[in-house]
Amino acid sequence: MGKVIAEVVIVPHGTGSPSLGKYVAEVEKTLRSFGLKTMLTPMGTILEGDLDVVLEAVRAAHEIPFRDGALRVGTTLRIDERRDREMTMESKVRSVEDKIRS
Amino acid sequence: MGKVIAEVVIVPHGTGSPSLGKYVAEVEKTLRSFGLKTMLTPMGTILEGDLDVVLEAVRAAHEIPFRDGALRVGTTLRIDERRDREMTMESKVRSVEDKIRS
Amino acid sequence: MGKVIAEVVIVPHGTGSPSLGKYVAEVEKTLRSFGLKTMLTPMGTILEGDLDVVLEAVRAAHEIPFRDGALRVGTTLRIDERRDREMTMESKVRSVEDKIRS
Amino acid sequence: MGKVIAEVVIVPHGTGSPSLGKYVAEVEKTLRSFGLKTMLTPMGTILEGDLDVVLEAVRAAHEIPFRDGALRVGTTLRIDERRDREMTMESKVRSVEDKIRS
Repeated sequence: MGKVIAEVVIVPHGTGSPSLGKYVAEVEKTLRSFGLKTMLTPMGTILEGDLDVVLEAVRAAHEIPFRDGALRVGTTLRIDERRDREMTMESKVRSVEDKIRS
Repeated sequence: MGKVIAEVVIVPHGTGSPSLGKYVAEVEKTLRSFGLKTMLTPMGTILEGDLDVVLEAVRAAHEIPFRDGALRVGTTLRIDERRDREMTMESKVRSVEDKIRS
Repeated sequence: MGKVIAEVVIVPHGTGSPSLGKYVAEVEKTLRSFGLKTMLTPMGTILEGDLDVVLEAVRAAHEIPFRDGALRVGTTLRIDERRDREMTMESKVRSVEDKIRS
Repeated sequence: MGKVIAEVVIVPHGTGSPSLGKYVAEVEKTLRSFGLKTMLTPMGTILEGDLDVVLEAVRAAHEIPFRDGALRVGTTLRIDERRDREMTMESKVRSVEDKIRS
Protein backbone atom coordinates (compact mmCIF):
# COMPACT_ATOMS: atom_id res chain seq x y z
CA MET A 1 0.00 0.00 0.00
CA GLY A 2 1.31 3.39 -0.97
CA LYS A 3 3.86 2.03 -3.48
CA VAL A 4 3.58 3.80 -6.81
CA ILE A 5 5.18 4.23 -10.20
CA ALA A 6 5.45 7.90 -11.08
CA GLU A 7 6.94 10.14 -13.74
CA VAL A 8 8.25 13.61 -13.03
CA VAL A 9 9.40 16.38 -15.37
CA ILE A 10 10.86 19.58 -13.94
CA VAL A 11 11.84 22.46 -16.23
CA PRO A 12 12.89 26.05 -15.66
CA HIS A 13 11.36 28.85 -17.79
CA GLY A 14 13.06 31.94 -19.10
CA THR A 15 16.65 30.80 -18.64
CA GLY A 16 17.81 32.31 -21.93
CA SER A 17 18.95 29.06 -23.55
CA PRO A 18 16.96 26.22 -25.11
CA SER A 19 19.44 23.79 -23.50
CA LEU A 20 18.05 22.66 -20.16
CA GLY A 21 20.41 19.74 -19.46
CA LYS A 22 22.37 21.63 -16.80
CA TYR A 23 19.20 22.15 -14.74
CA VAL A 24 17.85 18.67 -15.44
CA ALA A 25 21.11 17.06 -14.24
CA GLU A 26 20.86 18.82 -10.87
CA VAL A 27 17.17 17.85 -10.60
CA GLU A 28 18.13 14.26 -11.37
CA LYS A 29 20.84 14.19 -8.69
CA THR A 30 18.27 15.33 -6.15
CA LEU A 31 15.68 12.78 -7.25
CA ARG A 32 18.31 10.03 -6.94
CA SER A 33 19.14 10.99 -3.35
CA PHE A 34 15.86 9.73 -1.86
CA GLY A 35 16.43 5.99 -2.06
CA LEU A 36 13.72 5.44 -4.67
CA LYS A 37 14.19 3.33 -7.76
CA THR A 38 14.74 5.83 -10.60
CA MET A 39 14.95 5.63 -14.39
CA LEU A 40 16.02 8.59 -16.53
CA THR A 41 14.21 8.60 -19.90
CA PRO A 42 14.34 11.04 -22.84
CA MET A 43 11.13 12.65 -21.54
CA GLY A 44 11.49 12.66 -17.74
CA THR A 45 12.37 10.55 -14.74
CA ILE A 46 10.39 7.53 -13.65
CA LEU A 47 10.27 6.80 -9.92
CA GLU A 48 9.19 3.68 -8.03
CA GLY A 49 8.55 3.60 -4.32
CA ASP A 50 6.42 4.84 -1.48
CA LEU A 51 4.11 7.70 -2.52
CA ASP A 52 5.09 9.88 0.42
CA VAL A 53 8.77 9.57 -0.47
CA VAL A 54 7.98 10.28 -4.14
CA LEU A 55 6.19 13.49 -3.13
CA GLU A 56 9.07 14.47 -0.84
CA ALA A 57 11.56 13.90 -3.67
CA VAL A 58 9.48 15.92 -6.14
CA ARG A 59 9.06 18.72 -3.61
CA ALA A 60 12.83 18.88 -3.12
CA ALA A 61 13.63 18.62 -6.83
CA HIS A 62 11.19 21.41 -7.71
CA GLU A 63 13.39 23.77 -5.65
CA ILE A 64 16.57 22.94 -7.54
CA PRO A 65 16.16 25.12 -10.67
CA PHE A 66 15.29 28.08 -8.38
CA ARG A 67 18.48 27.43 -6.39
CA ASP A 68 20.33 27.39 -9.73
CA GLY A 69 18.99 30.77 -10.82
CA ALA A 70 15.65 30.11 -12.54
CA LEU A 71 12.79 32.53 -11.79
CA ARG A 72 10.00 30.19 -12.91
CA VAL A 73 9.71 26.41 -12.71
CA GLY A 74 7.17 24.05 -14.20
CA THR A 75 6.82 20.60 -12.62
CA THR A 76 4.66 17.78 -13.95
CA LEU A 77 4.01 14.61 -11.97
CA ARG A 78 2.02 11.55 -13.04
CA ILE A 79 1.31 8.91 -10.41
CA ASP A 80 0.08 5.38 -11.14
CA GLU A 81 -0.91 3.26 -8.14
CA ARG A 82 -2.75 -0.02 -7.99
CA ARG A 83 -3.65 -1.79 -4.78
CA ASP A 84 -5.02 -5.13 -5.95
CA ARG A 85 -1.55 -6.41 -6.72
CA GLU A 86 2.14 -5.49 -6.72
CA MET A 87 3.28 -3.42 -9.67
CA THR A 88 6.87 -2.53 -10.58
CA MET A 89 8.54 -0.68 -13.45
CA GLU A 90 9.65 -4.03 -14.85
CA SER A 91 6.31 -5.79 -14.47
CA LYS A 92 4.49 -2.99 -16.29
CA VAL A 93 6.76 -3.14 -19.34
CA ARG A 94 6.98 -6.95 -19.32
CA SER A 95 3.21 -7.29 -19.19
CA VAL A 96 2.83 -5.22 -22.35
CA GLU A 97 5.79 -6.82 -24.17
CA ASP A 98 4.46 -10.33 -23.40
CA LYS A 99 1.05 -9.43 -24.84
CA ILE A 100 2.59 -7.93 -27.98
CA ARG A 101 4.56 -11.12 -28.63
CA SER A 102 1.70 -13.54 -28.00
CA MET B 1 7.66 32.28 -2.06
CA GLY B 2 6.11 28.86 -2.33
CA LYS B 3 2.83 30.14 -3.81
CA VAL B 4 1.92 28.24 -6.95
CA ILE B 5 -0.81 27.70 -9.52
CA ALA B 6 -1.35 23.99 -10.11
CA GLU B 7 -3.68 21.67 -11.97
CA VAL B 8 -4.63 18.24 -10.71
CA VAL B 9 -6.53 15.40 -12.37
CA ILE B 10 -7.34 12.26 -10.40
CA VAL B 11 -9.07 9.31 -12.07
CA PRO B 12 -9.81 5.74 -11.03
CA HIS B 13 -9.12 2.89 -13.48
CA GLY B 14 -11.16 -0.25 -14.00
CA THR B 15 -14.35 0.92 -12.32
CA GLY B 16 -16.68 -0.69 -14.84
CA SER B 17 -18.31 2.50 -16.10
CA PRO B 18 -17.04 5.26 -18.38
CA SER B 19 -18.78 7.77 -16.07
CA LEU B 20 -16.29 9.00 -13.51
CA GLY B 21 -18.27 11.96 -12.08
CA LYS B 22 -19.09 10.17 -8.84
CA TYR B 23 -15.40 9.72 -8.05
CA VAL B 24 -14.42 13.16 -9.30
CA ALA B 25 -17.05 14.83 -7.07
CA GLU B 26 -15.57 13.20 -3.97
CA VAL B 27 -12.05 14.13 -5.07
CA GLU B 28 -13.25 17.71 -5.57
CA LYS B 29 -14.80 17.89 -2.10
CA THR B 30 -11.48 16.82 -0.62
CA LEU B 31 -9.47 19.32 -2.68
CA ARG B 32 -11.83 22.10 -1.53
CA SER B 33 -11.31 21.28 2.14
CA PHE B 34 -7.72 22.57 2.31
CA GLY B 35 -8.36 26.31 2.19
CA LEU B 36 -6.77 26.74 -1.24
CA LYS B 37 -8.35 28.74 -4.02
CA THR B 38 -9.85 26.14 -6.39
CA MET B 39 -11.42 26.20 -9.85
CA LEU B 40 -13.18 23.17 -11.35
CA THR B 41 -12.70 23.03 -15.14
CA PRO B 42 -13.88 20.49 -17.73
CA MET B 43 -10.39 18.90 -17.62
CA GLY B 44 -9.38 19.03 -13.95
CA THR B 45 -9.11 21.27 -10.93
CA ILE B 46 -6.89 24.32 -10.73
CA LEU B 47 -5.44 25.18 -7.33
CA GLU B 48 -3.76 28.34 -6.07
CA GLY B 49 -1.84 28.56 -2.84
CA ASP B 50 1.18 27.40 -0.92
CA LEU B 51 2.97 24.50 -2.63
CA ASP B 52 3.14 22.43 0.54
CA VAL B 53 -0.61 22.74 1.03
CA VAL B 54 -1.19 21.88 -2.65
CA LEU B 55 0.87 18.70 -2.23
CA GLU B 56 -0.99 17.84 0.98
CA ALA B 57 -4.34 18.31 -0.78
CA VAL B 58 -3.27 16.20 -3.76
CA ARG B 59 -1.95 13.48 -1.45
CA ALA B 60 -5.29 13.35 0.38
CA ALA B 61 -7.38 13.49 -2.81
CA HIS B 62 -5.39 10.65 -4.41
CA GLU B 63 -6.69 8.39 -1.62
CA ILE B 64 -10.34 9.17 -2.26
CA PRO B 65 -11.07 6.88 -5.23
CA PHE B 66 -9.42 4.00 -3.32
CA ARG B 67 -11.67 4.74 -0.34
CA ASP B 68 -14.60 4.68 -2.78
CA GLY B 69 -13.72 1.26 -4.18
CA ALA B 70 -11.23 1.83 -6.99
CA LEU B 71 -8.29 -0.58 -7.25
CA ARG B 72 -6.11 1.68 -9.37
CA VAL B 73 -5.80 5.46 -9.42
CA GLY B 74 -3.98 7.77 -11.82
CA THR B 75 -3.10 11.25 -10.59
CA THR B 76 -1.59 14.01 -12.70
CA LEU B 77 -0.29 17.24 -11.23
CA ARG B 78 1.17 20.24 -13.04
CA ILE B 79 2.75 22.99 -10.94
CA ASP B 80 3.61 26.48 -12.19
CA GLU B 81 5.61 28.68 -9.84
CA ARG B 82 7.36 31.96 -10.47
CA ARG B 83 9.35 33.86 -7.87
CA ASP B 84 10.17 37.13 -9.61
CA ARG B 85 6.65 38.41 -9.08
CA GLU B 86 3.22 37.50 -7.71
CA MET B 87 1.10 35.33 -9.99
CA THR B 88 -2.57 34.43 -9.50
CA MET B 89 -5.15 32.49 -11.51
CA GLU B 90 -6.72 35.80 -12.55
CA SER B 91 -3.49 37.55 -13.45
CA LYS B 92 -2.43 34.67 -15.70
CA VAL B 93 -5.64 34.72 -17.73
CA ARG B 94 -5.89 38.54 -17.77
CA SER B 95 -2.31 38.87 -19.02
CA VAL B 96 -3.09 36.68 -22.03
CA GLU B 97 -6.52 38.23 -22.72
CA ASP B 98 -5.02 41.75 -22.62
CA LYS B 99 -2.36 40.80 -25.13
CA ILE B 100 -4.92 39.18 -27.46
CA ARG B 101 -7.00 42.37 -27.48
CA SER B 102 -4.14 44.80 -27.99
CA MET C 1 -18.13 10.11 -32.89
CA GLY C 2 -14.84 11.93 -32.94
CA LYS C 3 -16.00 14.79 -30.72
CA VAL C 4 -13.64 15.35 -27.82
CA ILE C 5 -12.79 17.62 -24.94
CA ALA C 6 -9.08 18.38 -24.88
CA GLU C 7 -6.60 20.56 -23.07
CA VAL C 8 -3.50 22.00 -24.68
CA VAL C 9 -0.52 23.82 -23.19
CA ILE C 10 2.17 25.23 -25.49
CA VAL C 11 5.27 26.89 -24.05
CA PRO C 12 8.55 28.12 -25.52
CA HIS C 13 11.82 27.26 -23.75
CA GLY C 14 14.89 29.45 -23.42
CA THR C 15 13.26 32.77 -24.28
CA GLY C 16 15.16 34.75 -21.66
CA SER C 17 12.16 35.90 -19.64
CA PRO C 18 9.92 34.01 -17.19
CA SER C 19 6.94 35.89 -18.70
CA LEU C 20 5.41 33.76 -21.43
CA GLY C 21 2.15 35.69 -21.96
CA LYS C 22 3.27 37.20 -25.26
CA TYR C 23 3.78 33.74 -26.75
CA VAL C 24 0.69 32.27 -25.14
CA ALA C 25 -1.49 35.08 -26.55
CA GLU C 26 -0.36 34.29 -30.10
CA VAL C 27 -0.90 30.56 -29.51
CA GLU C 28 -4.39 31.35 -28.22
CA LYS C 29 -5.27 33.44 -31.29
CA THR C 30 -4.30 30.52 -33.48
CA LEU C 31 -6.28 27.99 -31.43
CA ARG C 32 -9.34 30.26 -31.66
CA SER C 33 -9.16 30.43 -35.45
CA PHE C 34 -10.24 26.82 -36.03
CA GLY C 35 -13.95 27.10 -35.17
CA LEU C 36 -13.66 24.94 -32.06
CA LYS C 37 -15.23 25.84 -28.76
CA THR C 38 -12.32 27.15 -26.62
CA MET C 39 -11.85 28.13 -22.97
CA LEU C 40 -8.71 29.85 -21.70
CA THR C 41 -7.86 28.76 -18.14
CA PRO C 42 -4.95 29.71 -15.84
CA MET C 43 -3.24 26.45 -16.82
CA GLY C 44 -3.97 26.05 -20.54
CA THR C 45 -6.69 26.09 -23.16
CA ILE C 46 -9.58 23.68 -23.25
CA LEU C 47 -10.96 22.75 -26.66
CA GLU C 48 -14.20 21.05 -27.64
CA GLY C 49 -14.89 19.67 -31.08
CA ASP C 50 -13.93 17.12 -33.69
CA LEU C 51 -10.68 15.33 -32.83
CA ASP C 52 -9.20 15.86 -36.28
CA VAL C 53 -9.80 19.61 -36.04
CA VAL C 54 -8.33 19.64 -32.51
CA LEU C 55 -5.17 17.96 -33.81
CA GLU C 56 -4.99 20.38 -36.73
CA ALA C 57 -5.33 23.34 -34.33
CA VAL C 58 -2.65 21.98 -31.99
CA ARG C 59 -0.33 21.30 -34.94
CA ALA C 60 -0.73 24.90 -36.12
CA ALA C 61 -0.41 26.41 -32.64
CA HIS C 62 2.78 24.43 -31.90
CA GLU C 63 4.44 26.38 -34.78
CA ILE C 64 3.58 29.79 -33.37
CA PRO C 65 6.33 30.21 -30.73
CA PHE C 66 8.91 29.14 -33.37
CA ARG C 67 7.51 31.80 -35.74
CA ASP C 68 7.85 34.28 -32.87
CA GLY C 69 11.51 33.46 -32.24
CA ALA C 70 11.59 30.51 -29.84
CA LEU C 71 14.16 27.78 -30.53
CA ARG C 72 12.43 25.08 -28.48
CA VAL C 73 8.75 24.43 -27.85
CA GLY C 74 7.01 22.05 -25.47
CA THR C 75 3.42 21.10 -26.23
CA THR C 76 1.18 19.02 -23.99
CA LEU C 77 -2.21 17.72 -25.13
CA ARG C 78 -4.73 15.74 -23.12
CA ILE C 79 -7.72 14.28 -24.98
CA ASP C 80 -10.88 12.94 -23.33
CA GLU C 81 -13.36 11.17 -25.63
CA ARG C 82 -16.38 9.06 -24.77
CA ARG C 83 -18.58 7.40 -27.35
CA ASP C 84 -21.44 6.04 -25.27
CA ARG C 85 -22.98 9.46 -24.92
CA GLU C 86 -22.54 13.14 -25.79
CA MET C 87 -20.12 15.03 -23.57
CA THR C 88 -19.52 18.80 -23.53
CA MET C 89 -17.39 21.16 -21.42
CA GLU C 90 -20.55 22.24 -19.60
CA SER C 91 -21.92 18.75 -19.01
CA LYS C 92 -18.63 17.59 -17.50
CA VAL C 93 -18.51 20.40 -14.94
CA ARG C 94 -22.25 20.30 -14.23
CA SER C 95 -22.15 16.55 -13.60
CA VAL C 96 -19.52 17.01 -10.91
CA GLU C 97 -21.11 20.12 -9.36
CA ASP C 98 -24.50 18.37 -9.16
CA LYS C 99 -22.96 15.42 -7.35
CA ILE C 100 -21.10 17.68 -4.91
CA ARG C 101 -24.34 19.45 -3.99
CA SER C 102 -26.46 16.33 -3.61
CA MET D 1 12.77 20.66 -39.02
CA GLY D 2 9.70 19.07 -37.63
CA LYS D 3 11.61 16.24 -35.90
CA VAL D 4 10.43 15.82 -32.34
CA ILE D 5 10.71 13.64 -29.26
CA ALA D 6 7.26 12.91 -27.84
CA GLU D 7 5.63 10.81 -25.17
CA VAL D 8 2.17 9.34 -25.51
CA VAL D 9 -0.07 7.59 -22.99
CA ILE D 10 -3.38 6.11 -24.10
CA VAL D 11 -5.75 4.52 -21.57
CA PRO D 12 -9.33 3.28 -21.72
CA HIS D 13 -11.77 4.20 -18.92
CA GLY D 14 -14.48 2.04 -17.44
CA THR D 15 -13.24 -1.29 -18.71
CA GLY D 16 -14.05 -3.13 -15.49
CA SER D 17 -10.52 -4.23 -14.65
CA PRO D 18 -7.56 -2.29 -13.25
CA SER D 19 -5.33 -4.27 -15.66
CA LEU D 20 -4.90 -2.24 -18.84
CA GLY D 21 -2.04 -4.20 -20.43
CA LYS D 22 -4.25 -5.83 -23.04
CA TYR D 23 -5.30 -2.43 -24.38
CA VAL D 24 -1.84 -0.92 -24.05
CA ALA D 25 -0.30 -3.78 -26.05
CA GLU D 26 -2.63 -3.12 -28.98
CA VAL D 27 -1.95 0.62 -28.75
CA GLU D 28 1.78 -0.14 -28.78
CA LYS D 29 1.51 -2.35 -31.87
CA THR D 30 -0.21 0.50 -33.68
CA LEU D 31 2.36 3.09 -32.57
CA ARG D 32 5.15 0.78 -33.80
CA SER D 33 3.61 0.49 -37.27
CA PHE D 34 4.39 4.06 -38.34
CA GLY D 35 8.15 3.79 -38.86
CA LEU D 36 9.00 6.06 -35.94
CA LYS D 37 11.66 5.27 -33.39
CA THR D 38 9.74 4.05 -30.31
CA MET D 39 10.63 3.22 -26.69
CA LEU D 40 8.16 1.56 -24.32
CA THR D 41 8.65 2.78 -20.74
CA PRO D 42 6.78 1.94 -17.51
CA MET D 43 4.80 5.18 -17.92
CA GLY D 44 4.12 5.45 -21.66
CA THR D 45 5.71 5.28 -25.08
CA ILE D 46 8.38 7.67 -26.29
CA LEU D 47 8.43 8.45 -30.00
CA GLU D 48 11.08 10.11 -32.16
CA GLY D 49 10.46 11.36 -35.67
CA ASP D 50 8.59 13.81 -37.84
CA LEU D 51 5.87 15.66 -35.94
CA ASP D 52 3.25 15.01 -38.60
CA VAL D 53 3.92 11.27 -38.43
CA VAL D 54 3.82 11.38 -34.62
CA LEU D 55 0.39 13.03 -34.75
CA GLU D 56 -0.80 10.49 -37.32
CA ALA D 57 0.39 7.62 -35.11
CA VAL D 58 -1.26 9.09 -32.01
CA ARG D 59 -4.49 9.70 -33.92
CA ALA D 60 -4.53 6.05 -35.06
CA ALA D 61 -3.56 4.66 -31.64
CA HIS D 62 -6.28 6.68 -29.88
CA GLU D 63 -8.84 4.66 -31.88
CA ILE D 64 -7.51 1.29 -30.75
CA PRO D 65 -9.12 0.99 -27.29
CA PHE D 66 -12.49 1.97 -28.85
CA ARG D 67 -12.02 -0.76 -31.46
CA ASP D 68 -11.28 -3.14 -28.59
CA GLY D 69 -14.48 -2.29 -26.70
CA ALA D 70 -13.72 0.76 -24.55
CA LEU D 71 -16.38 3.48 -24.37
CA ARG D 72 -14.05 6.22 -23.17
CA VAL D 73 -10.38 6.87 -23.95
CA GLY D 74 -7.92 9.33 -22.44
CA THR D 75 -4.85 10.23 -24.48
CA THR D 76 -1.96 12.37 -23.27
CA LEU D 77 0.77 13.61 -25.61
CA ARG D 78 3.85 15.64 -24.73
CA ILE D 79 5.94 17.00 -27.59
CA ASP D 80 9.47 18.40 -27.25
CA GLU D 81 10.95 20.06 -30.33
CA ARG D 82 14.05 22.17 -30.71
CA ARG D 83 15.17 23.74 -33.98
CA ASP D 84 18.57 25.16 -33.12
CA ARG D 85 20.16 21.73 -33.22
CA GLU D 86 19.47 18.04 -33.73
CA MET D 87 18.01 16.24 -30.71
CA THR D 88 17.51 12.48 -30.33
CA MET D 89 16.30 10.21 -27.53
CA GLU D 90 19.91 9.17 -26.92
CA SER D 91 21.37 12.67 -27.00
CA LYS D 92 18.84 13.91 -24.44
CA VAL D 93 19.66 11.19 -21.92
CA ARG D 94 23.42 11.29 -22.61
CA SER D 95 23.53 15.05 -22.12
CA VAL D 96 22.04 14.72 -18.63
CA GLU D 97 24.11 11.66 -17.67
CA ASP D 98 27.34 13.40 -18.76
CA LYS D 99 26.53 16.42 -16.62
CA ILE D 100 25.70 14.25 -13.60
CA ARG D 101 29.07 12.50 -13.85
CA SER D 102 31.18 15.62 -14.38
